[in-house]
Amino acid sequence: MHREEIEVRTEGEGAIHDVTEELRGAIERAGIDDGMAHVFTPGATAGVTTIEFEPGCVADLQAALERMAPRNAVYEHNRRWGDGNGFSHVRAALLGPSISVPVAKGSPILGTWQQVILVDFDNKPRERRVVISVT
Amino acid sequence: MHREEIEVRTEGEGAIHDVTEELRGAIERAGIDDGMAHVFTPGATAGVTTIEFEPGCVADLQAALERMAPRNAVYEHNRRWGDGNGFSHVRAALLGPSISVPVAKGSPILGTWQQVILVDFDNKPRERRVVISVT
Amino acid sequence: MHREEIEVRTEGEGAIHDVTEELRGAIERAGIDDGMAHVFTPGATAGVTTIEFEPGCVADLQAALERMAPRNAVYEHNRRWGDGNGFSHVRAALLGPSISVPVAKGSPILGTWQQVILVDFDNKPRERRVVISVT
Repeated sequence: MHREEIEVRTEGEGAIHDVTEELRGAIERAGIDDGMAHVFTPGATAGVTTIEFEPGCVADLQAALERMAPRNAVYEHNRRWGDGNGFSHVRAALLGPSISVPVAKGSPILGTWQQVILVDFDNKPRERRVVISVT
Repeated sequence: MHREEIEVRTEGEGAIHDVTEELRGAIERAGIDDGMAHVFTPGATAGVTTIEFEPGCVADLQAALERMAPRNAVYEHNRRWGDGNGFSHVRAALLGPSISVPVAKGSPILGTWQQVILVDFDNKPRERRVVISVT
Repeated sequence: MHREEIEVRTEGEGAIHDVTEELRGAIERAGIDDGMAHVFTPGATAGVTTIEFEPGCVADLQAALERMAPRNAVYEHNRRWGDGNGFSHVRAALLGPSISVPVAKGSPILGTWQQVILVDFDNKPRERRVVISVT
């Protein structure tokens, strides 16, 4: 079992970061040919998924999440805590914090145009952790 | 490989239960320092994710899911089966039944304000199973 | 670690395929009694989740995804690349490419009415790969 933790400096506000190279590197350093890779982000206002990482898809995903949990809707979290990031919590819970990717011949089995991304939903810049586990 | 199954009595209707303590206990009983924990709920009308488990975020997530799959929209499932829980099925499929959390030093690597939750979308009280696997 | 890759010929356009039998078969061929099964689809325009696989729920999930990322909304991906499948990318990122299911006594621990499904969001027929890993 090999685990790496990376830090990603984000601007928050739905910032999307491609962590596929870090995933490939971790698998290589794990020295495992066949197995599973798990990507997880600790924290309640960020999520992990896959997408074609190009500016169009990135903007489209952000727009869809704005429709699902609008930034300026009324949130109970904001009323209770005054944080202003109620929308961030909802989006993170909906997207989920983890994905699992199979590994073959020392590489993740991803589609040609499929990248693993971290989405930071918080309403301010953050130093985000991403935990990559290879088993 | 260590597996535990817990039962959670819920009120349904989007009831959200924090199962983080059960996850911590299972990892401890597994006696594993470094590995992966997987949380899964069997059944087609419940889901698993993470959130800051406080009443505000809980209400906000429930409200977002009501926007995504309104309780009183027209559902083909209801028309075919008369169950009345078409919205529950859609919400569960969207949220997903599983997450994977890395384990270090015998604890799940979660954010300070991040809890693992079971969401029961069904339209009646249920006895829910949550399967925790530690590898 | 046992891995199988299946191909599913789909019509795209939100086509939903039940891959539970393939999952059961892979677990059986893995010869593993207790463990984890991971289901992943390579590609940026398809996803994996669970649902009660009957025509009503299938139609209801498709309708919800149409609300979340309407086919005919304006997508930056379409404007940049002329692909016309911006909605497919957004839906796939939201649903996610992977789930993990625990295995006991050589079978996946699924609810009675819970099936594992591949959803192909692309706007044309595709030959889809689904990777099933048993650990």
